[in-house]
Amino acid sequence: MMVPVISIVGNSGSGKTTLIEKVVKELTSRGINVGVLKHDAHGFEIDHEGKDSWRHKKAGAATVGLSSPEKLAIIKDVKAEWPPERIIASFLIDHDIVITEGYKTGTLPKIEVLRAAHSATPATVNDSTLLGYVTDVELKTDKLLFGLDDVTGVANFIEERFVNGSALNGNNKETVSLVVDGVHVTLKPFIEELIREAVLGMIKSLKGCEEPAEVELRVKRKL
Amino acid sequence: MMVPVISIVGNSGSGKTTLIEKVVKELTSRGINVGVLKHDAHGFEIDHEGKDSWRHKKAGAATVGLSSPEKLAIIKDVKAEWPPERIIASFLIDHDIVITEGYKTGTLPKIEVLRAAHSATPATVNDSTLLGYVTDVELKTDKLLFGLDDVTGVANFIEERFVNGSALNGNNKETVSLVVDGVHVTLKPFIEELIREAVLGMIKSLKGCEEPAEVELRVKRKL
Repeated sequence: MMVPVISIVGNSGSGKTTLIEKVVKELTSRGINVGVLKHDAHGFEIDHEGKDSWRHKKAGAATVGLSSPEKLAIIKDVKAEWPPERIIASFLIDHDIVITEGYKTGTLPKIEVLRAAHSATPATVNDSTLLGYVTDVELKTDKLLFGLDDVTGVANFIEERFVNGSALNGNNKETVSLVVDGVHVTLKPFIEELIREAVLGMIKSLKGCEEPAEVELRVKRKL
Repeated sequence: MMVPVISIVGNSGSGKTTLIEKVVKELTSRGINVGVLKHDAHGFEIDHEGKDSWRHKKAGAATVGLSSPEKLAIIKDVKAEWPPERIIASFLIDHDIVITEGYKTGTLPKIEVLRAAHSATPATVNDSTLLGYVTDVELKTDKLLFGLDDVTGVANFIEERFVNGSALNGNNKETVSLVVDGVHVTLKPFIEELIREAVLGMIKSLKGCEEPAEVELRVKRKL
């Protein structure tokens, strides 16, 4: 991914949303640009009955967009759930960090919220992608442990490990994001560089695009 | 654009939303996949107070996404209004037709709704991108004229002229969509073909991507 992602997981009711809310506030106050993606297996309602966008959607539009000088909203029907990697690559690429909520399975790096008053049994078991717990339960684990109210600690960890990311990634911060037929494709550094330079080279030769900073390209096979 | 776009314009209160609602219903019933993009210069509220996504947004997240097995929603802060071409290229590319509402200026092809009971003066004057009126006003014009209730006529026109599009575009249906630094770039057929074949050629050589139908690529210049 071109943008680092950390997933906050936990049993339903454990306090994921509240933790994310506080961490977002903390990271934002540090000048970090945060995106959030929430997984809702049970579906959600977002549009208001009677509003124009609701009417267009009800009339059959598969996607409804709303655009104003301050905000952009897109509501889209999908035939099957999109994996978070695809949603992030398509819609949340322009952030310093994306925090996802509720993707318990999958390979995103995770932090679990575990609140004793709610349940003392972790939702994740033997998960190599789990980095730590935010909890008031005494756990025997080699994973990181943050107190339930340790918003600063979690924010520090996310900032150091994911936003700066330099300790892990060196100069290899991904600058290419590729989705092929709806699947996010992970690229080796050499291939990434090859694609980046080839695409930038082509685009630079177009009139008015001599110094591109960011290129978004969609290609359909001609049938 | 990779997807044809028609804009429904008109004075505020002329009946744009109602017309679009009916046309969307008609086109959808014909098996056409429709997207709608509404321009709202005055801003809009879409998220419900107290909901998780609302809380994350309020905490400072610049983008909030919601994903379920049936639906995907993205609410995004923007620093300046995005031109419709960019929104469509980024978020509404996978439709047979996109109908926009309220983009009175700009170069999108337009149909104006003009209702005598509301106002007899067109919103568009000497606009070469205006294709016709949906109206009960007697207008002296060389543009197309549809009756206020002629949903079938408008839908036929959109389907023939924009969805099938073959009469106009021959085999030149665009298969590349390019956004450079937030601006949609129109490509000449030869350049489009060059970029398409170069990108598909690279992608095909990747393991697991031998037969790509649709490629989404984002590239950032390495700084």
